[in-house]
This record gives sequence, C-alpha cells and structure tokens, in this order.
Amino acid sequence: MNFIDVILEEINNGNLNAEELLLSRGDFLCQPNQVHTKVYFVLDGSIRIFYVDDQEEHTIRFGYKNSFFAALDSFLNDLPTNYYMQTIKSSKLLAVEKSEFLNFIQSNVKYQEAYQALQQDLILQQMEREIDLLTASPIIRHQRVLERSPQLFQEIPLKYIASYLRMTPETLSRIRKS
Amino acid sequence: MNFIDVILEEINNGNLNAEELLLSRGDFLCQPNQVHTKVYFVLDGSIRIFYVDDQEEHTIRFGYKNSFFAALDSFLNDLPTNYYMQTIKSSKLLAVEKSEFLNFIQSNVKYQEAYQALQQDLILQQMEREIDLLTASPIIRHQRVLERSPQLFQEIPLKYIASYLRMTPETLSRIRKS
Repeated sequence: MNFIDVILEEINNGNLNAEELLLSRGDFLCQPNQVHTKVYFVLDGSIRIFYVDDQEEHTIRFGYKNSFFAALDSFLNDLPTNYYMQTIKSSKLLAVEKSEFLNFIQSNVKYQEAYQALQQDLILQQMEREIDLLTASPIIRHQRVLERSPQLFQEIPLKYIASYLRMTPETLSRIRKS
Repeated sequence: MNFIDVILEEINNGNLNAEELLLSRGDFLCQPNQVHTKVYFVLDGSIRIFYVDDQEEHTIRFGYKNSFFAALDSFLNDLPTNYYMQTIKSSKLLAVEKSEFLNFIQSNVKYQEAYQALQQDLILQQMEREIDLLTASPIIRHQRVLERSPQLFQEIPLKYIASYLRMTPETLSRIRKS
C-alpha cells in the first residue's frame, strides 16, 4: 500500500475532507510563532521549509509532487512552529485539518500501521539529517543526499538544495560537474 | 504513567525479560556496521552515543540514570548502525531484546499509546537537535540544551557535552562561567 495514494483516493471518495489550495510562487503557508497543524499533499509544484538563524535561512525540508508535508513540530505538539513554509513554484496543494487527519487514521487498523511506519521513517530521516549536518566534506554531504533523495535534484532548484546541503550554489554546481 | 517506571516494574515482576549488565568505564556496547537492536535501561552510570566523521568523534546522544537508549537506527530498521555506544562511567544496565520489547508493547493498549507518544517525542527531539546544529552562536546552542536537558549538566562530564554542542571544552567552560 502506498499511503499517499490511499489518502488521495479517500479524499477523492469524500471520506476525508481536504481543501484545495492554488498558490503562487513565493507564497507563505506559515511563519514562526504561528500554531500551524495542517497536513498538506502536493498535487503539483514544490515547497520548502526553512529555519532562520541570525538572519540566515536554512532550508531543512522540501515538499514536491506526490509527497506530503507539515510544520511537523507544530503538528506534533500543537505549539508554535519554528519554521517558514514557502512555495518554490506555483503549487496545487490539498490541506487537511489535523483532527480530521487523525480521525481518519484512527478509522482503520491498516492506516494506523502505515502512520506508525511513517513516524518511524521520520525518526530515521531526522537521524540521517543529523549525520549530514555533522559531515564535514561537501562532496560526501552531496553524495548522501543524492543517494537518499534522487528526486530532489529533478524537482528543486539548485540554490535551495545548496542551502539544504549547507554550501554555496557555486560549490554545489562544481561538485555536480566533477 | 511514567513509561520507564512501568517497564522497570514489569521487568521486576518477571513480565519482561531483561539481562543485567555491569560495565566498566569505556566499554563499548556497539560499533558501526553491527546490527544492534537491543533496548537499554540505565540503572546506574552513563553512556554516550557518537558518530565518527573523518576521524572526528561527534557525540549525538546520552543515556543516564533512569533513561533508556538504543542504537536507534539499527533498532528501527534492523540494518547496521552508524553509531558507537560507549560507557562514560562504570554502569549498570538492563538490556532487552527488540522482539521481546515489541511483544511487550503490543500486549497492552496503554503501552502502545506510550510507545506512540515516545516516537513522536523522538521526532521532536531530532528536530530540536537539527536546529541546534544549524545555530551558529555557541552561547545560544548552550542555552537551548540547558533549557531542554538540565539533567545533562549534572550527569555528564563537560568534555562530552562540549562535543555534543560542537564546541571545545574551553569554550563551554567560558560560556558556563559568564
């Protein structure tokens, strides 16, 4: 079972309420200090989630076609998020309220299992990300992310991938050519 | 319900099998490229989990009295771990096999809920850690961890906390005095 396909089918069948959003490039879905608990599914386009430290933007995650995303801190603890979420391209999204989403998950043991697996996967992703951030070599950082998320390099402009990889766009271009 | 207290009680009652380990300071529980899926409970002592990049050790997590820990990547995906786990002091641990632990969790809806909450908490912890790693100021990094985990500064020698905070022990000492 591909969990996203199942969810999209259930939205189409009217078993899960979702709001369709058409956004322009550069639109913000949320900013720090807002409680923002919706879950989003990307029908088209792409978004980035970033954190600002001392006026510097750090891209920490992406959403692209056929993936879902949230301001995960706020979604999990109902407190204000630390993140900005902004579209990179004009995007078509489906937005589902947290309570609606959790009721839907609870309605079916198979969905509960898939949600549990998703949470485990999120822990593992964050552990891989921690290792990325501790890896000194830009070449190895690039290699790790390329192996893990090849789709990223099709969907996301290099300057945002460079921010995610903590290097300049020039360094990333050089690594990709060599 | 404090989940750790419940688990320790169930071990005492013989409802969950655990092996008691007495370790010396500096003993290794696991090294990278080993599949290591046990869960540990710290009765006494402390341990650190670290990752080595290009011959540099990066401490990424601690276990201390009344906490539990695991080589979490290996525990979750049954693949070889990326981490070393090593005692910082002589330590008394309880080790539980993964299958044993998961069967125990499955035996009771309350335990399943607590385990689910624990997983959510792990995601949030890893997100906080990601922000730590993206924070340029050593003073703010120290402040964030002090607020989140004050117990750390009672239980763990400063040189390992400095490694966790990505600063020299000298810088950490200076920050703590000011």
